[in-house]
Amino acid sequence: MPTHKLRVIPLGGLGEIGKNMMALEYGNDIVVIDAGLMFPSEEMLGVDLLIPDISYLLARQKDLRGIVITHGHEDHIGALPYILSRIAPPIYATKFTRELILVELKQRGVKTGAKLNLVRPGSRITLGKFTIEFFSVCHSIPDSVGLIIHTPLGIVVHSGDFKIDYTPVISEATNFSQLASLGAKGVLLLLSDSTYAELPGYTPSEMVVSDTLDRIISEAKGRVIVTTFASLVSREQQVFDVAVKHGRRVFIVGRSMKEIVSMALKTGYLTAPPGIICRLDELKTLPHNRVIVLSTGSQGEPTSALVRMANRDPSSRVQIIPGDTVVISATPIPGNEALVSKTTDSLFRQGANVIYDKLAQVHVHGHGSQEELKLLLNLVKPKFFVPVHGEYRHLSLHASLARSMGIPKDNIFVLDNGDILELGQDSGKVVARTHVGVIYVSGLITGELDNAVLRDRKLLSRDGVVVVTIAVDAENATLAEKPRIITRGLIDTGGERKLIEKGRDVVLAALDHDKRRLSEPSFVDARVKDSLTRFFHEQIHRRPVIITVVVEVGKTQREPTS
Amino acid sequence: MPTHKLRVIPLGGLGEIGKNMMALEYGNDIVVIDAGLMFPSEEMLGVDLLIPDISYLLARQKDLRGIVITHGHEDHIGALPYILSRIAPPIYATKFTRELILVELKQRGVKTGAKLNLVRPGSRITLGKFTIEFFSVCHSIPDSVGLIIHTPLGIVVHSGDFKIDYTPVISEATNFSQLASLGAKGVLLLLSDSTYAELPGYTPSEMVVSDTLDRIISEAKGRVIVTTFASLVSREQQVFDVAVKHGRRVFIVGRSMKEIVSMALKTGYLTAPPGIICRLDELKTLPHNRVIVLSTGSQGEPTSALVRMANRDPSSRVQIIPGDTVVISATPIPGNEALVSKTTDSLFRQGANVIYDKLAQVHVHGHGSQEELKLLLNLVKPKFFVPVHGEYRHLSLHASLARSMGIPKDNIFVLDNGDILELGQDSGKVVARTHVGVIYVSGLITGELDNAVLRDRKLLSRDGVVVVTIAVDAENATLAEKPRIITRGLIDTGGERKLIEKGRDVVLAALDHDKRRLSEPSFVDARVKDSLTRFFHEQIHRRPVIITVVVEVGKTQREPTS
Repeated sequence: MPTHKLRVIPLGGLGEIGKNMMALEYGNDIVVIDAGLMFPSEEMLGVDLLIPDISYLLARQKDLRGIVITHGHEDHIGALPYILSRIAPPIYATKFTRELILVELKQRGVKTGAKLNLVRPGSRITLGKFTIEFFSVCHSIPDSVGLIIHTPLGIVVHSGDFKIDYTPVISEATNFSQLASLGAKGVLLLLSDSTYAELPGYTPSEMVVSDTLDRIISEAKGRVIVTTFASLVSREQQVFDVAVKHGRRVFIVGRSMKEIVSMALKTGYLTAPPGIICRLDELKTLPHNRVIVLSTGSQGEPTSALVRMANRDPSSRVQIIPGDTVVISATPIPGNEALVSKTTDSLFRQGANVIYDKLAQVHVHGHGSQEELKLLLNLVKPKFFVPVHGEYRHLSLHASLARSMGIPKDNIFVLDNGDILELGQDSGKVVARTHVGVIYVSGLITGELDNAVLRDRKLLSRDGVVVVTIAVDAENATLAEKPRIITRGLIDTGGERKLIEKGRDVVLAALDHDKRRLSEPSFVDARVKDSLTRFFHEQIHRRPVIITVVVEVGKTQREPTS
Repeated sequence: MPTHKLRVIPLGGLGEIGKNMMALEYGNDIVVIDAGLMFPSEEMLGVDLLIPDISYLLARQKDLRGIVITHGHEDHIGALPYILSRIAPPIYATKFTRELILVELKQRGVKTGAKLNLVRPGSRITLGKFTIEFFSVCHSIPDSVGLIIHTPLGIVVHSGDFKIDYTPVISEATNFSQLASLGAKGVLLLLSDSTYAELPGYTPSEMVVSDTLDRIISEAKGRVIVTTFASLVSREQQVFDVAVKHGRRVFIVGRSMKEIVSMALKTGYLTAPPGIICRLDELKTLPHNRVIVLSTGSQGEPTSALVRMANRDPSSRVQIIPGDTVVISATPIPGNEALVSKTTDSLFRQGANVIYDKLAQVHVHGHGSQEELKLLLNLVKPKFFVPVHGEYRHLSLHASLARSMGIPKDNIFVLDNGDILELGQDSGKVVARTHVGVIYVSGLITGELDNAVLRDRKLLSRDGVVVVTIAVDAENATLAEKPRIITRGLIDTGGERKLIEKGRDVVLAALDHDKRRLSEPSFVDARVKDSLTRFFHEQIHRRPVIITVVVEVGKTQREPTS
């Protein structure tokens, strides 16, 4: 008989796409699934990235049995370099995932005591009261797994990120027969990927892309440049395969593409016949119709190889030649649309023929659509259901799918990060919340996001800053010199001088009222701010940040004492 | 015999979607087509909107015969309030368009000497050597027209923004028979809308949306809230029609929606049986299944009616009730995706069932897809072709379509804003460029965008600002007090004090080297900037904007002389 309830505590990844982290807790045993990062939205000015808040785990370190990783995408492994300096439980990952984690830790120069254990689909590990089995799922990166977690209360299935592809290009098809047999016996809880819960129907197979690539490359008279996510190894395999078929050689550009292709070739996730991959200095020796370039830059990243080609960056070793065909074999991640469009436009301007998602099926995504989500629900037949990995609308729509398939409303939980869901054998309830803040990484600073700082940056970004220096001769209750005004980011140089002169008069007039109070810096500060705020609003309808510096001059000074 | 060439000079709208403005010039006669605005991209910090550069027109004012407007969208009329203070040629617009221009001028408080002339589809005006005929086109706003422009060199056809809809909900179907007969006689030049040149096939008819709305509203058990573009009057008509059919009343919320619906009812573009539109205070008296709310906010605009509902803004007179169905009958304009997603998520959180473009066909757009563009090219059979209204990729793909239909490559011109294309009867060539700057409106300032200001705002937005005050006792070559450091937007309050103290020591050490030069402000400034830049980079990997204020104290001061 179970003596505890099972606690399900999402620490990241719910109500957002990114920074996935889910804790399962039974008595004194906690296991964590994934530790991802997230890229900030536009309004989080100056923030490099976001990671999950692990305060809950820090307070329970002695109970933390391990972190299990489902696959090697940044939103599942990217927080490890930041959290492993504070906690160091054993980590469990499949081979390809483990390689990517090692790269990540090395890049950030992180040394950790955490042990990085290798697991395989089909293998089993025991972490406290949890026994975890890994099963293959099909996703847009090799070696992705879902989890079957045996707990004292019953079986928990975690889908990982998945789609159903009966004809995957590499890696195994999602292993559903095992899940079906579990479903027949009874599963307590399903946690399932909601990313594409908006999309009706099925996600097409990777094979569809092979056909498109084959057609494009057979029709292209010149060079073909293909860009995709570096970790989308199956796409790279497709490129190698069509290259072989059409007698073209492949040139690889972009740091992450080179690294991952090389790692995938070494570890056997990618196969290429000898001689098909060439060194860049051989590029000029081949006729154009014998060339495929495989490049980074599918998201329009400003320093990527493709963007440097698009911008005719002289440091780029590959330059666009009119007649090149560029295939953008990816879709923009939300937030990257403008960068990708800009890159596409620049490539067209260079005379390239660009083929992208709107024009042909050059990409299929890695998450299941509605019919696939329903199939999983149907096979697993869980008593309780928690949609994971999605914005609130995705979770909500996934919950609706589950209801439409007969799971009672009270057994479906659309959770927020920080909710503590307690499941018994027959019922579940959110019993409490643990604080999860927005933890940012910005340069070398990591901390909980302070809205005051963001508000200041927002103000500064719109209307800039005005620094006003007031030198006061306090003894004589006069200004020792005219107010000085320096602006940055307020107005262009053309209009600046006149505006500043007027502003100076405004400050003078404001301080003239009550000369005896010139010795009170807070009085001077308030007067300057009030008068200039009004002035800039009236003159140009702008509200810059105003900083007043009040310096007393003309009295006996002392040397700094530090 | 024509004595001049025809000049085609795009002043805005090419290589971008927005701020459309095209000048046609023959000898001493210039006519301008449209005068639109554009919303800035994210990186144009602090910019409210962009308008075309009219320097070319200012230099040729005496030749400017008029501005012809194709329809009332902001990207075609929105610059009028800003340019009519500088030029005041007669303006020609259809009735609905004219009403919107009047609203626009009134809102901005613009008084102009420019005459606002009314034209109708089928009517003709003569402007210098140009005779212009207006023909109906189907678009997402009533009273849209294309132009048939008779010039001494031949006929120019301008498509306006158009799609082909054989079953439009209101307004006339695009009038193509006239174009076909022109095509048979010979057309010199076609200027055609490229916005959706990426999309294969045909754009669906508005009627498709009627069916979807009908189904949603017949199935909804509670209230239905529909949001769309205020100017999309045909969609509003559809909402009224289904309301009548299903015995629901319509409540209108949001300023622009109220204004445009009221104007469209008055002018006859919209018809609603008496009693179908109700006042908001009647909302509570009706059962939920008798209510439709028609609202602004389809782009997630932060102050719109729908967003205030989504955020439970207490000032909103309509609040979401669980069980409400919200129909977002629009797609996000590029750049607005995140705002729309956020609004959708908030509505789901309130318990609404939200139906949007990914889930059902609740919107069709207003521009023709590839087959429609080909049909127009086929009917008009122009000698020369200039794709207009699109990003570079759209223009480029539209040009490819034209080539595939047999227009010779040398007769197709993918232009940039500012290009001066000269057409003779048999050949054409870009002969020169006129300068077109990026003209911004920011509060009350209008001017050419200064990259230095934008660069400063970008820096400020990332890492904030640091103001360092150095009080120098020049006579004694000492610092009169410790350096003062104020930061805004750099670091949260928790970490600030310690960092600033350290920074102060760094500045002191940097100035200590060469005390005799303390009287040189530029020396002090350079030392402070160098040392602190290095310090912040080492400590926190950030590069704030550093402003140094050097004040001399302790010598005889003088009263300000202003």
